[in-house]
Amino acid sequence: MKKYAIILAVMLFAACPGGNVAEEYKLPEPLRTNRSIEECLAARRSVRGFASDTLTTEQIATLLWAAQGITDTARGFRTAPSAGATYPLETYLVTHQGIFLYHPAAHKITLVKKGDKRAELALACLGQYWVGKAPASIVLCAVPERTSQRYGERAMRYIWMEAGHAAQNILLEAVALDLGGVPIGAFSDDAVSKLLDLDKAEDKTIPLYVLSVGTPKR
Amino acid sequence: MKKYAIILAVMLFAACPGGNVAEEYKLPEPLRTNRSIEECLAARRSVRGFASDTLTTEQIATLLWAAQGITDTARGFRTAPSAGATYPLETYLVTHQGIFLYHPAAHKITLVKKGDKRAELALACLGQYWVGKAPASIVLCAVPERTSQRYGERAMRYIWMEAGHAAQNILLEAVALDLGGVPIGAFSDDAVSKLLDLDKAEDKTIPLYVLSVGTPKR
Repeated sequence: MKKYAIILAVMLFAACPGGNVAEEYKLPEPLRTNRSIEECLAARRSVRGFASDTLTTEQIATLLWAAQGITDTARGFRTAPSAGATYPLETYLVTHQGIFLYHPAAHKITLVKKGDKRAELALACLGQYWVGKAPASIVLCAVPERTSQRYGERAMRYIWMEAGHAAQNILLEAVALDLGGVPIGAFSDDAVSKLLDLDKAEDKTIPLYVLSVGTPKR
Repeated sequence: MKKYAIILAVMLFAACPGGNVAEEYKLPEPLRTNRSIEECLAARRSVRGFASDTLTTEQIATLLWAAQGITDTARGFRTAPSAGATYPLETYLVTHQGIFLYHPAAHKITLVKKGDKRAELALACLGQYWVGKAPASIVLCAVPERTSQRYGERAMRYIWMEAGHAAQNILLEAVALDLGGVPIGAFSDDAVSKLLDLDKAEDKTIPLYVLSVGTPKR
């Protein structure tokens, strides 16, 4: 079953842009590196120059797990803490193949929009061209109502901080995988929402943070 | 010189409450564990029950470094990224000996207020008693103007996310040190500000996040 999922996922990411993209891909188990937390903290730097390599399925699976993966299946707890375990975050992935939504409980991604939208994402990020060059960008979004139902007006600050938790996990894990990333907060909220079809999502979802990741250009 | 600093710092943290507390302590180098980033991500859980152990100077130095330590001395870059390298965060430490401010460039702490204020901090956190039981709490604060001068209204969301970066670093590093922590967003902004003398700070400083850390109770 696991092997089958890996083969499927490898087929997905190895395919050319415009090739067949399935509606859903189960992701392989996250990689385990031997990079210590202090090494990652010390070596993390914002990287904006990326080599042309695409990321492997395992790298993508590991970055998405680091962002919001389930680490306690019984209780549904994740790699980043959430106020009252309300888990407002939704994690999107943008690659040359399309835009995908990460589902933590199933550790899978589902297709939101087919095709290479990285240049559009870069435009939505006010023309920060490295977003278009990065093989993958993770866009952290949120359904604020999940948290505001319980915490009212104070919820938004919790949600921003949770985006910070998940972002830092991604950036540190990128270091462990010999990748580099850059956090991007400057974007048109409307343009990113439209690109990710957030306006069509069942719940009112808003974009919070863009993390572009890739192999640093030497 | 380094040995001297460690001895000084050990003297500080080994002293009884109400003992002599100096105005300033240089901290030892952060510890290096061999805990991988994935181990820390997988094992991190919010901990609210703490054993009575105090933290060692090395543990405190490592947690403060993880939060906001300098990792590029030439450019002053830190363990957590900051929008336009404006670095709005100010990191406070509350122990049984007093309240201290962390200075990343000098990797030292300076005394803000002498005496055990942990019970007062717990009250300011709306009576969350584990804050009073934890040997140490790190209070992430910010001088918003540093970032808003450049980014205007959007600055506050960047600042909240930066608090999230630093908080996650602390929580992951706590795991690596065999400690546990809990992030606390529910507190009286006014009460925490007053306790930390933020109203007396030169710049307008606001509290963002409280992280209580200690040895998990078995």
